[in-house]
Amino acid sequence: MSTDPELRITFQPSGRTVYALPGTTILEAAARVGIVLLTPCGGGGTCGKCLVRVCSGATGSAAARSHRLTAAQMQEGWRLACCTVIESEAVIEIPAASMFERSQKILTGDAGNTLALDPAVTVATLQMPPPTQQDDRPDLERIGAALGETLELDAVRIAAFPRQLRTADWHVHVVREGRRLIDVQPAGKPASVLGVAFDLGTTTVVGTLLDLVTGRELGVASTMNGQIPFGDDVLTRILRIRENPARLPDLQDAAVHSLDEIVSALCRQTGVASNAIVNATLAGNTTMQQIVCGIDPFALGELPFTPVFARSLDIAAIGIGLAIHPSARLHVFPQVGGFVGGDTVAGMLASGFDRLKKPTLLVDIGTNGEIALLHNNQILCASTAAGPAFEGARIAQGMRATAGAIEKVLVKDGDLHINIIGNVPAAGLCGTALIDTVAEMLRHGLLDTTGRMSMPDELPAALPEALRRRVERQGDDARLVLAPATGKQAAVCLIQRDIRELQLASGAIRAGVETLLQRAGLAAADLDAVLLAGAFGNFIRRSNAQRIGLLPPLPHERIRFIGNASSMGAKMALLSVKERARAETLRKRAVHVDLSADPAFQNAFSMAMLFPEETEEKALGH
Amino acid sequence: MSTDPELRITFQPSGRTVYALPGTTILEAAARVGIVLLTPCGGGGTCGKCLVRVCSGATGSAAARSHRLTAAQMQEGWRLACCTVIESEAVIEIPAASMFERSQKILTGDAGNTLALDPAVTVATLQMPPPTQQDDRPDLERIGAALGETLELDAVRIAAFPRQLRTADWHVHVVREGRRLIDVQPAGKPASVLGVAFDLGTTTVVGTLLDLVTGRELGVASTMNGQIPFGDDVLTRILRIRENPARLPDLQDAAVHSLDEIVSALCRQTGVASNAIVNATLAGNTTMQQIVCGIDPFALGELPFTPVFARSLDIAAIGIGLAIHPSARLHVFPQVGGFVGGDTVAGMLASGFDRLKKPTLLVDIGTNGEIALLHNNQILCASTAAGPAFEGARIAQGMRATAGAIEKVLVKDGDLHINIIGNVPAAGLCGTALIDTVAEMLRHGLLDTTGRMSMPDELPAALPEALRRRVERQGDDARLVLAPATGKQAAVCLIQRDIRELQLASGAIRAGVETLLQRAGLAAADLDAVLLAGAFGNFIRRSNAQRIGLLPPLPHERIRFIGNASSMGAKMALLSVKERARAETLRKRAVHVDLSADPAFQNAFSMAMLFPEETEEKALGH
Repeated sequence: MSTDPELRITFQPSGRTVYALPGTTILEAAARVGIVLLTPCGGGGTCGKCLVRVCSGATGSAAARSHRLTAAQMQEGWRLACCTVIESEAVIEIPAASMFERSQKILTGDAGNTLALDPAVTVATLQMPPPTQQDDRPDLERIGAALGETLELDAVRIAAFPRQLRTADWHVHVVREGRRLIDVQPAGKPASVLGVAFDLGTTTVVGTLLDLVTGRELGVASTMNGQIPFGDDVLTRILRIRENPARLPDLQDAAVHSLDEIVSALCRQTGVASNAIVNATLAGNTTMQQIVCGIDPFALGELPFTPVFARSLDIAAIGIGLAIHPSARLHVFPQVGGFVGGDTVAGMLASGFDRLKKPTLLVDIGTNGEIALLHNNQILCASTAAGPAFEGARIAQGMRATAGAIEKVLVKDGDLHINIIGNVPAAGLCGTALIDTVAEMLRHGLLDTTGRMSMPDELPAALPEALRRRVERQGDDARLVLAPATGKQAAVCLIQRDIRELQLASGAIRAGVETLLQRAGLAAADLDAVLLAGAFGNFIRRSNAQRIGLLPPLPHERIRFIGNASSMGAKMALLSVKERARAETLRKRAVHVDLSADPAFQNAFSMAMLFPEETEEKALGH
Repeated sequence: MSTDPELRITFQPSGRTVYALPGTTILEAAARVGIVLLTPCGGGGTCGKCLVRVCSGATGSAAARSHRLTAAQMQEGWRLACCTVIESEAVIEIPAASMFERSQKILTGDAGNTLALDPAVTVATLQMPPPTQQDDRPDLERIGAALGETLELDAVRIAAFPRQLRTADWHVHVVREGRRLIDVQPAGKPASVLGVAFDLGTTTVVGTLLDLVTGRELGVASTMNGQIPFGDDVLTRILRIRENPARLPDLQDAAVHSLDEIVSALCRQTGVASNAIVNATLAGNTTMQQIVCGIDPFALGELPFTPVFARSLDIAAIGIGLAIHPSARLHVFPQVGGFVGGDTVAGMLASGFDRLKKPTLLVDIGTNGEIALLHNNQILCASTAAGPAFEGARIAQGMRATAGAIEKVLVKDGDLHINIIGNVPAAGLCGTALIDTVAEMLRHGLLDTTGRMSMPDELPAALPEALRRRVERQGDDARLVLAPATGKQAAVCLIQRDIRELQLASGAIRAGVETLLQRAGLAAADLDAVLLAGAFGNFIRRSNAQRIGLLPPLPHERIRFIGNASSMGAKMALLSVKERARAETLRKRAVHVDLSADPAFQNAFSMAMLFPEETEEKALGH
């Protein structure tokens, strides 16, 4: 909606940087770079846990809800991240006390404070004798002799290599992946050996720059997947390629272009050269992974939805046009089957699925919803086509969570209250507001469990007048006015069709969860934890998500936000070949459950399309 | 000189096609596609051995010397290839009797009539069960199971693969290099599995298209090396990159562009898709091989002239931008050392250096002269910077052997006679004419053994008047008029500086030969054979080359033209992994002799700069 330039936001003490549109909340900006803040109130501005300090830069209030802060605190720059929006370039300090413990644990690895560090690309520092007329061995043999191994060179454009050897007087850092020589750098300064971990989502792409020598994270950047113009879900994109295979390179290039954008942003942020990036990992669903590798997703568009590969692939980055070191390889995550791809494997890796003992459910709510259930050492995986409704698409006035989006809806004091991102009139509503609105409508009798909106003449007698006035007739259906029209801006309404879209999206995920639980012989109550992954997952208000049936009725403490687990898994694999082996083991252990072929899923889906009775919510005592 | 479009010439029965400028002799056009005709008279139009039949198309006479043919023969289209030039698109039949036996033997392999056929890329035809909901293994695992091996996929844009499997009902040809899957083709028609063998010369690039299933040769194409604008010899190009490393990609791209031009021409000739080319081999000198791989030739520009690699490389074709199958690899030949690279190894492979018993010398006269000497199971290799004088460069009125070039010079009946390529006035002279002229000048006392041209007042008293009138004063030096000025065209003359260039070029090669012989403790007379390789080598008139000292005084039957041996070696390696292993063994056995560091070479060079006394020629009795 906004064409404003993105603003650079730096978080301290991590030093992570993100570019975000004016009007983005600090909470969301932080989440984009993997900093998940405490939001037990669901980002409602009431618990005061997401306390951050604005060191420099201008911010504004997303809503007048900062009553938990004193004037002195405000003076010192303290703000609640959930209800403060960015208005200029800013530096923001995140106190450790505000960070989400579980996510933090995940973000720094589950074995301790740091991620395992034994990357595929290694560095050796050598001092070699220079060539003479008596000893004129080719350079590669000379280096190989110094390393005690036979080096290979399948690479191209390692232009600097023979020159660097000589200008550095044969005192060099030798960078290699296995036996394959990648780069040579003068030993006079520290080796610059970086990697980038990509999380290639259907809608959003995230990349993290890591130092492969120290394991240190240098920067995070994200962008939209350039494939979106070809369709907003994987099936549409697959169909477009099925219709015309000549479109595959276009979709591949679009994805690679997004990865390259991230590389540029990371290099700009950190001042490093793209040539220093000598390795990359990528986690995405099977469609994204196949397309980015240039492999036709044809068979993912027909029964039995077969991907091309299961074991991880290591492909030449240059071969797909990825603008990092020309000798670098891209490690593409192993895949389970169907649409359950590398992102799920990465998510399982990040959440330590192979080390957990109690029944655990991992749910990644994206355009494609991926679900993994661990029970008795068995892993069941499935994917459901949730569609992009949660990201605002296919909703009449839906939009992404940027300036102008209604992001929270709450009934209080007899009327409906909204929060809008940024100091602008409401332009539409995003996924969290959609869930909020429908939950409130169910609570106040504006909607029945079949998803039918009550017409103005069918409203409960006890309904407060203000709320009643928001329900309008639209043809044969009702609609709910969230924000009335202003002089400049049309009204923002929720219409009957939007409810149907939400029922499909929410029902698909919930039905997937139920089907896996049923296969494992479990009830939701048996789950030790539900791990919610993905950027969107972190902004859901649990009680509302439960009210609409998206999440099963469980105490909130068992529902945990784990941030971008797919991105985390990609980072772990970038830093460690052992983590790559773990991912491969997880892939082998995982059993793909094809929901489309499962009558139990069809049953569960038709059940889950119905909203729960209110009793279910009350049973949890929230 | 001419900007005419090139004409398509097809040779029968081989079906080979070449594009050549109007005015090119049939002899030369045929040589470009590896058809070496019998020319015991040195292409002088006198022996009548190079008889060919023009089936269609217009030809002209390079000189009025077709007196060996009857009117009836002429009527039937018979011509002498050496003195007939192409004037339009033509189809030309080459009788077996006209083909050079030794070359033929080489061109079809030395072990028999066909080249060894066990290519790196192989094809298996499989019928697999299609995926079902009970058996939804990823495609790669399904193919791997059918082959009984674990397949790898480091490739990109194998777009057709999952689709082809299904449209072909899982009855397919599976193309792979080792375990690496390259392509899948429907089994309904024969597999199209092609390769291209490149000979990347400093000046000329040749490519041969081969069928990797049948071993059949499908076409040959050649073009100029696109690097020429960067300098006409390797040292100049190395210096340009040493000055500015940013030029390396430019030179790399220029070379790759030439390879791509050849691929386009081959595909156009034969009607195949470039995607069917699934493997390639490339032989060139160390500089060419390093640049095309994107490896800085920096160290080849300073003592001790060290190349980067010795063992062959297999690089991704797509990585250097080579427009063949995106999964194809390019096999780059092993290198010996210094400037002795893959072309020499390929030449040794083609001439069976590892199977010959008697002392044999291989000389490839190109812009870089490469010399290999086999004796007592030892192989000595050296390269000398002959420079491009033999290709017409650095000669005041030098030009390549195309229309307008004086290509032969002969003193007869008291005057100098010239042959010009094409029915056009003389525009300059090419390498063979340069050698001819200098040989005749030596024979008739116009030049002393130091290379000084006699001034008009110093000419021998017995010199015929017509010849005498051709010597003119030019400042402090003399010059020789080969073709007087006409109304439209300036005179073509040989000047003192041209003689100096020839002395350097010829002296460098001869000194290299002498140095290697000396190392091996051999005299020239001990040589069983001198194998002359390279396009230019095939057009040299042996007695003239011996008169100027380029070749040692040996009976002519021991000096053999073997055609483009480097290209032949590249073809052998394309068709057979065993030949690749042989090449690797030859590389290991070969000892690089660095002539620049050898005082014996300096001596030999200063000796070889002097032209031989006439007695040497007479001793051979020619």
